[in-house]
Amino acid sequence: MPPASNSTHWTLAQRAAKMNPSVIREILKVTERPGIISFAGGLPSAKTFPVAEFEAACAKVLKDDPAGALQYAASEGYAPLREMVAQQLRDQSAAAGQRWDVDASQVLITTGSQQGLDLVAKVLIDAGSKVLVESPTYLGAVMAFTPMEPEVVGVAGLADGLDLADLAAKSAQARFLYVLPNFQNPTGRSMGEASRAALSQEAARTGLPIMEDNPYGDLWFDRPPPAPLTARNPEGGIYLGSFSKVLAPGLRMGFIVAPKAVYPKLLQAKQAADLHSPGFNQRLIHAVMQDGFLDRHVPTIRSLYKAQRDAMLQALATHFPEAASQPEHNLTWNTPAGGMFLWARLPQGMNAVDLLPHAVDQGVAFVPGAPFFAGPPDTRSLRLSFVTPSVDEIHLGVAALALAIRARQV
Amino acid sequence: MPPASNSTHWTLAQRAAKMNPSVIREILKVTERPGIISFAGGLPSAKTFPVAEFEAACAKVLKDDPAGALQYAASEGYAPLREMVAQQLRDQSAAAGQRWDVDASQVLITTGSQQGLDLVAKVLIDAGSKVLVESPTYLGAVMAFTPMEPEVVGVAGLADGLDLADLAAKSAQARFLYVLPNFQNPTGRSMGEASRAALSQEAARTGLPIMEDNPYGDLWFDRPPPAPLTARNPEGGIYLGSFSKVLAPGLRMGFIVAPKAVYPKLLQAKQAADLHSPGFNQRLIHAVMQDGFLDRHVPTIRSLYKAQRDAMLQALATHFPEAASQPEHNLTWNTPAGGMFLWARLPQGMNAVDLLPHAVDQGVAFVPGAPFFAGPPDTRSLRLSFVTPSVDEIHLGVAALALAIRARQV
Repeated sequence: MPPASNSTHWTLAQRAAKMNPSVIREILKVTERPGIISFAGGLPSAKTFPVAEFEAACAKVLKDDPAGALQYAASEGYAPLREMVAQQLRDQSAAAGQRWDVDASQVLITTGSQQGLDLVAKVLIDAGSKVLVESPTYLGAVMAFTPMEPEVVGVAGLADGLDLADLAAKSAQARFLYVLPNFQNPTGRSMGEASRAALSQEAARTGLPIMEDNPYGDLWFDRPPPAPLTARNPEGGIYLGSFSKVLAPGLRMGFIVAPKAVYPKLLQAKQAADLHSPGFNQRLIHAVMQDGFLDRHVPTIRSLYKAQRDAMLQALATHFPEAASQPEHNLTWNTPAGGMFLWARLPQGMNAVDLLPHAVDQGVAFVPGAPFFAGPPDTRSLRLSFVTPSVDEIHLGVAALALAIRARQV
Repeated sequence: MPPASNSTHWTLAQRAAKMNPSVIREILKVTERPGIISFAGGLPSAKTFPVAEFEAACAKVLKDDPAGALQYAASEGYAPLREMVAQQLRDQSAAAGQRWDVDASQVLITTGSQQGLDLVAKVLIDAGSKVLVESPTYLGAVMAFTPMEPEVVGVAGLADGLDLADLAAKSAQARFLYVLPNFQNPTGRSMGEASRAALSQEAARTGLPIMEDNPYGDLWFDRPPPAPLTARNPEGGIYLGSFSKVLAPGLRMGFIVAPKAVYPKLLQAKQAADLHSPGFNQRLIHAVMQDGFLDRHVPTIRSLYKAQRDAMLQALATHFPEAASQPEHNLTWNTPAGGMFLWARLPQGMNAVDLLPHAVDQGVAFVPGAPFFAGPPDTRSLRLSFVTPSVDEIHLGVAALALAIRARQV
């Protein structure tokens, strides 16, 4: 008989000690109560999922080439989907006034864009490497980088770009700069054209590679965002995209566009990580996207999310009418031009982590902003998602949030 | 304008230098010629894919809970599928005479079992850590471990188990031993009951964790294999399973069963790697597997592959009738009791890498065995897959192989 189980010597890798449950996930456990209106989630609205189109695509793919869809496949991804991604990026960039000659051979299909972050981390980060991120930034990226044990350094984010002086002070020896230029998670901020041009110049000047993550770029409300950073210097950046916000996250489909300097190593990392992304799912995405489906579908998502953002802005203005004149005694917020999130700030002396349980008692949840910062956090900040709840729920939720804030102010 | 693109300083991680294209993939490029009969591939026969059942499952899943199937989901996996996996392992182990109390909470759904290897590597391997593998072993595992920069040490494999003296000599400080006890890739070998009991004892004695990879275990021909190693000491091992060989690889669905000592860290690695495996695919697998489908379906795969193995054995015996009496002057081979691969050995003085182009000229391809060895390779060894070609093709292919060998012997 084997001896008792605890005799096995499990020695965990050093990196495992640094890998911890998402702080936000832990925080959100208090919000998992029935009846809570949640501004906390980062989930696309399920109303936007093109279910009928997926049904038709399943039938078509399994009829046209079942063996191809269900067999092992190339690590690079399904060739027609790679070509479709390249074409879309060429078109979007041209429409934004920037020629970007994306070739399908530069496209690597990934298991969600989260996997793109994992692969880039493996290929570009040694233990102790400096990696620059906007502060605040997407926590999932930091979680993907952490197993490779980098030193993550925050660069101050501004309302429409990065603080380039701060960047210049920190960029020596950095392996790359990770940015979300469009409707960023968590802040909803976007980089304007001038900011992009200046950042691109600065990165080119110092030779700093840019990792550009763009899951939300298609979700603009009034006008498309300026051309991607990568389009301005394709050999100097890696671009990550996703189908999660324009079709559905449950298929886990994303992609990387990478220059020749790194593509072969990303491909080898991909092969080692999961051989290839599901060929069935790749063909579903390709089948759904044929005949310009996104041109008809994405506008419906934009108008839904815009209406919900407007409802949130209206509710906030109703409950905090003196936000502009007395910002230190009110909740203040920004006006995102797309995406899923709005960034707000509590009155002076308040802390978003402390407020959360009281807000939940009032029936509303949000995500405190502090965990998103690399470096000194703004403990008054919070992230409000406007895409999951309905317009009515948004009004009720903001009213509940206002009650919780006012009660703590007294 | 940004300066020329080559001014960007791409500094690759040290591990990237160790990540190289699969040697086998490079070797197989010579075989990519129309009309070649391939014993080289590791692909399940597409005839075995239950296409009609997947069609029905797609319709059912998208009708019953489209929002659930297409939305972001828990990193652990779809709860009913995790329960189904646990139940199946409990049943199979009990049928093999070994109680194994697998609980669904120990099951982590992965994007193919290849991802299981990646996650285990992240959690258990530091740069320089010693990792033990059978020699020869599955190359994809070594590729998954490589980015974490281990020292991979081969333990000699025997016809029905591991060389335990060699294991004892090498196991000090090893992070784990990686084994495929059933119908191993590349050799088709299996560990017998006595070998498993002895290995389990030895691992428990020294506290060596076992990583047990079991993609082929359901593909037995005459009788089910003995109980898994992990069932004998559940706290001392990690078990990796796959749906690729019993349903279809193109959905990329596998799983890990892990003890509490490592499950939480594997889960965090999973979350960072791709958030979760596609929820749609998990529900498809679950829907197809309901009502005991595998009990009806897998026997059809077994009898197909058994007939093809028999055809290969028969063809080999026809073309090398003196293999038993004069092994040094003939091709020799084993008789796998399941799975997809047969392991063969060339006559004295021949080298499988050198032979391959000549075999391809004769119209047949195989995989040389040398790249599968960690440590000194047997350069005469080769792997023959009997699952992709038809029975007729198997006879033709073996005849072509015999011609190539005889021509080189003169």
